[in-house]
Amino acid sequence: MSLVVVGSVAYDAVETPHGSVKRMLGGACTYISLSASYFTRVGIVAVVGEDFCESDAELLASRGIDLAGLERVPGKTFFWSGIYSADMNDRTTLRTDLNVFADFNPKLPPHYRKEPYLFLGNIQPALQRAVRSQMTSLRMTGGDTMNYWIENSREELVETLREWDFLLINDSEARLLSGEHNLKKAAEKILGMGPHTLIVKRGEYGAILFRDGEYFVAPGYLLEDVFDPTGAGDSFAGGFFGYLASRDIDLKSPRTDFNELRRAVIYGSVMGSFCCERFGVDRFRTLTRAEIDARFDEFKAFTNF
Amino acid sequence: MSLVVVGSVAYDAVETPHGSVKRMLGGACTYISLSASYFTRVGIVAVVGEDFCESDAELLASRGIDLAGLERVPGKTFFWSGIYSADMNDRTTLRTDLNVFADFNPKLPPHYRKEPYLFLGNIQPALQRAVRSQMTSLRMTGGDTMNYWIENSREELVETLREWDFLLINDSEARLLSGEHNLKKAAEKILGMGPHTLIVKRGEYGAILFRDGEYFVAPGYLLEDVFDPTGAGDSFAGGFFGYLASRDIDLKSPRTDFNELRRAVIYGSVMGSFCCERFGVDRFRTLTRAEIDARFDEFKAFTNF
Repeated sequence: MSLVVVGSVAYDAVETPHGSVKRMLGGACTYISLSASYFTRVGIVAVVGEDFCESDAELLASRGIDLAGLERVPGKTFFWSGIYSADMNDRTTLRTDLNVFADFNPKLPPHYRKEPYLFLGNIQPALQRAVRSQMTSLRMTGGDTMNYWIENSREELVETLREWDFLLINDSEARLLSGEHNLKKAAEKILGMGPHTLIVKRGEYGAILFRDGEYFVAPGYLLEDVFDPTGAGDSFAGGFFGYLASRDIDLKSPRTDFNELRRAVIYGSVMGSFCCERFGVDRFRTLTRAEIDARFDEFKAFTNF
Repeated sequence: MSLVVVGSVAYDAVETPHGSVKRMLGGACTYISLSASYFTRVGIVAVVGEDFCESDAELLASRGIDLAGLERVPGKTFFWSGIYSADMNDRTTLRTDLNVFADFNPKLPPHYRKEPYLFLGNIQPALQRAVRSQMTSLRMTGGDTMNYWIENSREELVETLREWDFLLINDSEARLLSGEHNLKKAAEKILGMGPHTLIVKRGEYGAILFRDGEYFVAPGYLLEDVFDPTGAGDSFAGGFFGYLASRDIDLKSPRTDFNELRRAVIYGSVMGSFCCERFGVDRFRTLTRAEIDARFDEFKAFTNF
């Protein structure tokens, strides 16, 4: 194993213009780890309830994901339901039942602690910090957050970010965190908060990586049918970090090859695009590394000049 | 001369978060021709009133633009005023006085008629057709339109488009014209209407070129300060077509080098980005070809991988 992923494992109910699913496997940790598993060995840290299906655990295990850190406790698994707008650029949350996730206190199995790569999914910043402090040989820490923590736990979040190598958030979160509307100015401010690398996700418009005065812009992939955008951002994170981990990249080094970061952003974009092709995690049931590499080449064809 | 541009020459009043200007040179034909003049020789066809300032004619002439087709008639020049939202992604039109533009009946000076390249700015489709029929040796016709014509003169527009080599419109217009929300599907439908090449502009997110089963995506340039987006789309058009004209490209040929089209899209993006750096056409008063080529190289650095 090389990459430890901490975050939510959940059940989702989702309605999009293409249909609806009453209950399917979801959660940031699920998407991140499934996506990263195409690039590197992954272990997860999460909590589920007694209702967690064996077949869902088997899906994760089938991708070689270490489930030693998947705690099962009395109660129900985190449940989220939402409905997407006709153009799928907006979604409305209908229900959020934290259930066993409300008392999530991530405990790392001993054999996770010496791993070099850590991704902290979107949970309470203090918990993210507590997890990181349990790791003994970190080469790179990255993570996500959301508007809720930016608005309600800003100090705690800023303290937490100080220790990270990269932050991966969407454009509206970058604006909220920095107080700047302009993305270049927002990035400059955020890069002054600790992380030396920032990835701003822009939904269907792709993503931008900022680092040390340089930046790289990746457009979104033009899908003919977006079935369900749920998990696309987390799949991006998994592809991005999974690729970096597979290449033994140390972002702290000033000699880090910027081309490797460019490729990591493209792999992230590729994984996010595949995620949207089916409901929930379904695309990951059949996706192959060969398909991933073919789409990576497609990105080259429609962006390079 | 090689490129004939037909469209509006106007005075604009604009308010953005960076300030306001009560009266400045504007109009699609103005921006397109100024931008294209960095790449090829341009002649314009437009109408202005008695209030048209000599200094504005001089600006156009200083860029080598042929003004033989700039008709001056009794009355006032087309006037538009608008105000941009705080994030500049939306604008509200406060006033549109067509003035002499209401009776615009484009007449081509004899020496324009044998030119190979024609760009039809956004005017009534029947007029666009009438202009095209006056040209005798066309190698390539491109043009723009807007939601008003798509909604109110659809048949006339469809008849007009049939003769064009490329259409350049924004994403919402592409959706309106095709009836498809998905851009790939929208492009397929529009390419079935006549133009064999389609460029969809996406504002700050850049542009996509579609042609013969292939496509190319250019992101927008990340400006630190967008002073005034007025004319950015028209400046894109000027850079795109100006570059193609300068390279003697014949889009009709199936052997057209797709790389030249990619470069044309990037030159379009470069010109659109410069336009936003000052109010109105002000950036074109100082802009040099060396600055344009330097920004072209910057696009390479932040998109190629």
